[in-house]
Amino acid sequence: MPHDTATADGAPSLELIKAHIRDIPDFPHAGILFKDITPLLNHREAFAAAVAGLCAPYRDAGVDHVVGLEARGFIFGAPVAMELGAGFVPARKAGKLPSDTIDQSYDLEYGTATVEIHADAITPGSRVLIVDDVLATGGTGRAAVDLVRKAGGTVVGFSVLMELSALHGRGKLPDVELHTLLSV
Amino acid sequence: MPHDTATADGAPSLELIKAHIRDIPDFPHAGILFKDITPLLNHREAFAAAVAGLCAPYRDAGVDHVVGLEARGFIFGAPVAMELGAGFVPARKAGKLPSDTIDQSYDLEYGTATVEIHADAITPGSRVLIVDDVLATGGTGRAAVDLVRKAGGTVVGFSVLMELSALHGRGKLPDVELHTLLSV
Repeated sequence: MPHDTATADGAPSLELIKAHIRDIPDFPHAGILFKDITPLLNHREAFAAAVAGLCAPYRDAGVDHVVGLEARGFIFGAPVAMELGAGFVPARKAGKLPSDTIDQSYDLEYGTATVEIHADAITPGSRVLIVDDVLATGGTGRAAVDLVRKAGGTVVGFSVLMELSALHGRGKLPDVELHTLLSV
Repeated sequence: MPHDTATADGAPSLELIKAHIRDIPDFPHAGILFKDITPLLNHREAFAAAVAGLCAPYRDAGVDHVVGLEARGFIFGAPVAMELGAGFVPARKAGKLPSDTIDQSYDLEYGTATVEIHADAITPGSRVLIVDDVLATGGTGRAAVDLVRKAGGTVVGFSVLMELSALHGRGKLPDVELHTLLSV
């Protein structure tokens, strides 16, 4: 069941977060209105509010590992892991991790992509929070959830800064506790 | 001038950090002994010790922005920014940032690569700390320093978890306050 979107600090934090996300027309290609989070990252109070909001429902959830999705998910996932006192696990594109991996492929508009974690990164039976900046079509998120479960972890939640609701990514994750701070 | 390598917590933290970096032979290609930091990221005390060590010399340095280098530099740079109360600026590979950028190219063994930041990310006159996981040949680090200066920022330091001393990256950065936690 999705949480509501209130952060620990309530509505003022959400307004601060929203105020530091800007629209960039025609990126990465014509007709796409890209939501740029770099002004948020570069504003210390807004960034701290975003990290606090991503953590809020999971402070007492006994999270052992936080999985962050390459590359922007690293920027939020690493401080979330530190704040929750959990280990951080980078989920990377194919070929980037040096040791033995497990992987999960997913469909893109044209072709497929693969996400990988180290095979020994998730202790079987451990509690795992997945973190990313944006939930779009849900393909990467779905792959990350399946990957954590394949490794023997329990997915306690998928915590995302911003849901692009028109792309219906939520529909791909009916079996996941989805926590989104903003829906646009 | 380089700092010495003591962290805020002294030698026990360094031992903890070292104990969670593993050698992977023949990655990314035969004959290379890759230093894998993922066990460190996945150990909460070791990760916290690394972040504290990267921050230590800069706690009173009035850092306005922390620049993290894609992709592993994001994992350390984001929590360092939060801990120092600074904004975080991702330095990305070419074509990843959506708004107007400034860029700096550098030589690779074969060919060149380019690192970019948003043109409005660094306030002219501001104080900037650059963070990365590894100092190897120094090409990326040199490009990042030049990029920050091109943007009008003052580089107060370049804070790196691990220096691969055989690759002499330090020699490319004689004009930078270089802080490395480990030298291997």
